Amino acid sequence: MIVEAITVGTELLYGQTVNTNAATIGRRLADAGLDHQHSSVVGDDHGRMVDAIRLAMTRADALIITGGLGPTQDDITREAIAAATDRPIEFSDDYADRLRHWWERRGRAMPESNLKQAEYPQGADLLENPKGTAPGIRLEVGDTVIYAVPGVPVELEILLDMYVIGDLRDRSDSRVVLNRVLRTYGESESKIGELLADLYDDGNPSMAFLASAAEIKVRLTAKAATTEAAEAMVAPLQAAVEERLGSLVFGLDDETVETILLRLATARGWSIATAESATGGLVASRITAIPGASEVFRGSIVAYHEDIKRTQLGVDADLIAEHGVVSEPVAIAMADGVAAALGADVGVSVTGSAGPDPQERPVGTMVIGVHTPDKTMARTVSLPGDRERVRTYTTTGALHLARLAMSGEWWHGDSKRGRWV
Amino acid sequence: MIVEAITVGTELLYGQTVNTNAATIGRRLADAGLDHQHSSVVGDDHGRMVDAIRLAMTRADALIITGGLGPTQDDITREAIAAATDRPIEFSDDYADRLRHWWERRGRAMPESNLKQAEYPQGADLLENPKGTAPGIRLEVGDTVIYAVPGVPVELEILLDMYVIGDLRDRSDSRVVLNRVLRTYGESESKIGELLADLYDDGNPSMAFLASAAEIKVRLTAKAATTEAAEAMVAPLQAAVEERLGSLVFGLDDETVETILLRLATARGWSIATAESATGGLVASRITAIPGASEVFRGSIVAYHEDIKRTQLGVDADLIAEHGVVSEPVAIAMADGVAAALGADVGVSVTGSAGPDPQERPVGTMVIGVHTPDKTMARTVSLPGDRERVRTYTTTGALHLARLAMSGEWWHGDSKRGRWV
Repeated sequence: MIVEAITVGTELLYGQTVNTNAATIGRRLADAGLDHQHSSVVGDDHGRMVDAIRLAMTRADALIITGGLGPTQDDITREAIAAATDRPIEFSDDYADRLRHWWERRGRAMPESNLKQAEYPQGADLLENPKGTAPGIRLEVGDTVIYAVPGVPVELEILLDMYVIGDLRDRSDSRVVLNRVLRTYGESESKIGELLADLYDDGNPSMAFLASAAEIKVRLTAKAATTEAAEAMVAPLQAAVEERLGSLVFGLDDETVETILLRLATARGWSIATAESATGGLVASRITAIPGASEVFRGSIVAYHEDIKRTQLGVDADLIAEHGVVSEPVAIAMADGVAAALGADVGVSVTGSAGPDPQERPVGTMVIGVHTPDKTMARTVSLPGDRERVRTYTTTGALHLARLAMSGEWWHGDSKRGRWV
Repeated sequence: MIVEAITVGTELLYGQTVNTNAATIGRRLADAGLDHQHSSVVGDDHGRMVDAIRLAMTRADALIITGGLGPTQDDITREAIAAATDRPIEFSDDYADRLRHWWERRGRAMPESNLKQAEYPQGADLLENPKGTAPGIRLEVGDTVIYAVPGVPVELEILLDMYVIGDLRDRSDSRVVLNRVLRTYGESESKIGELLADLYDDGNPSMAFLASAAEIKVRLTAKAATTEAAEAMVAPLQAAVEERLGSLVFGLDDETVETILLRLATARGWSIATAESATGGLVASRITAIPGASEVFRGSIVAYHEDIKRTQLGVDADLIAEHGVVSEPVAIAMADGVAAALGADVGVSVTGSAGPDPQERPVGTMVIGVHTPDKTMARTVSLPGDRERVRTYTTTGALHLARLAMSGEWWHGDSKRGRWV
């Protein structure tokens, strides 16, 4: 089963939008063990779309087309699929009713142009979209199956999961591909690679390294006839990697640092608050993105202006005068202060110089503090990159230091492990 | 002059790396007014690379290939270009000397595998790379020119700028492509499409619609011999669209709602603070992502737990008991309260039920309040989608309502315009 992706949109050709949709499709295919040999981008042009679809049909068993299913004049994917497969466009009265109902439920009149989304190439199935008004399309043409799904990222993801990937697996040789992801924090990708050099294998099972915002994932993949057989192939390798990396591994598969933090807080009966300067609310927004955060998260004080640090967090003016705002004593005072102000057991603080202009200290100098009922500590780091990168890495770092403080590893652990990178 | 990009790497096909290189090439081509009709990704496979190069040569005047120029076994772009154009590989003693010198200057012995980078398809020019050891390649084959440049982003960018884009412009009729983006807020994509139906054109100038998190962009593109001529083509269409859409248009090109908000605040001499419940810091983090936000942004109180709304924002317990936390009176009290607590002229508040479990009111019910020195108002909306989507759209909505409140449009504007979607 060879799959080919076609992402549609002139904005992709001219780099106004980075093609994250192609990456999303690629990851889903990799996870499902499906072959992906070509991926192409084509603009909103009827003739070139028809050519691209016809070409892909000559070299793949399945096509995933994304984009061009909206209600405006430049959305022409339905027509291009119909033309490429020599069939007429039909109209679904049933889907038109659903569209009207969708708008009615939101108390608004539906623009008539939306009815375009009830059109489909003859013989296609319409795939209902729980996140928007544009349905997906599935069309079988001889031995080839064509899926078209909207380009809005959340809609693409859910339609891939609901209708496309499982369907493709059913059509393929039903090989099981088991992925086990070990999430690590505290060392660089090259160091993790060195630590695991003698365990590395690109066969079956295989190992791969993926870096993302201060965390390194080690992915172990096994392909086998059954889940049990794949598990049996992964298990000894996983055990060896975990033994080698020790406390660098903080989670498996979908366990994020936020979910682990909330779990630790629940287990200890501790509540959490944050005090943020340079990250401006990012730490709080990451924590509150998790459903159920309200059980342990009390709130945050974003003390962006210096005087807010004094009035809301009780940071002493003399302390700021002596050490500067970007300093460990101030981070400690902020962490203590927010815990007191918001009545939380744990206070997480961030202060720093995120750029582009330096604030007191060189750009990238960031200080994180964590208050727990046991102790308050702070750590200073120097991060490369622009404002966005510095803020993102610092946010991830703050969540990890809070995790390490709450578990006690920060002060009791092996000093060579859990080092912040 | 039609250009086609080929990005090489199996990691791109499986989404382990997002294809930012394709976007970089696209932006450079757009800026230079060069046509880019196809972009494709191919894995590190000799046969498929040869096919992709041959296909691109049939439909483009110039190819930009990136990736696969490194020193390891899976770097096969040189060989694939040679095979696709039926010519042998040659070896540059001169470049081999430069490579040895590059390593010597760094006080290191050169691994012999690096000599692979002195190989090139017969007839090609080697393009010296100031950022790394892999030279680029330029090869003319009949009327087609093929450029190959390394996939390391900084090396790609500098080689594009030094050797590729200017060369392509010299070879082309040096046409200018002008893009003008009108950013709108307040209506759906389909409604915007309907409002502009009679102005729509996919010729030159052309119009396209791009939806992103509650904002709709209308892009006007003109191609002409000079910037002045392109401007003259876009100007009447832009004027017609602006006249038709009125206050739905809030910004041009790179002007985001955050930047406009900060500009409005600076112009009025007003400072801003936010009080967030359901968005948990996202509004503050969007504002503080902009360099210079510290000039006007004072801070935020993320009042996630109900009692923080009382203790930190001064929201009356009776008001909460009477109306509930997710209500316009509470949003108004939060906006007033944060302005008072943090000493800001403008207070922006968010409270709501983001899901997955309803809080007091159905999931997706969100209330935004804005306090200004003139007035405080709140608006309730109902949003579809999951927690992440509800939070993202609400954040964008809060920034827009703050903008509309600060400009006075919220209370003085056409009530049919600026409606929150």
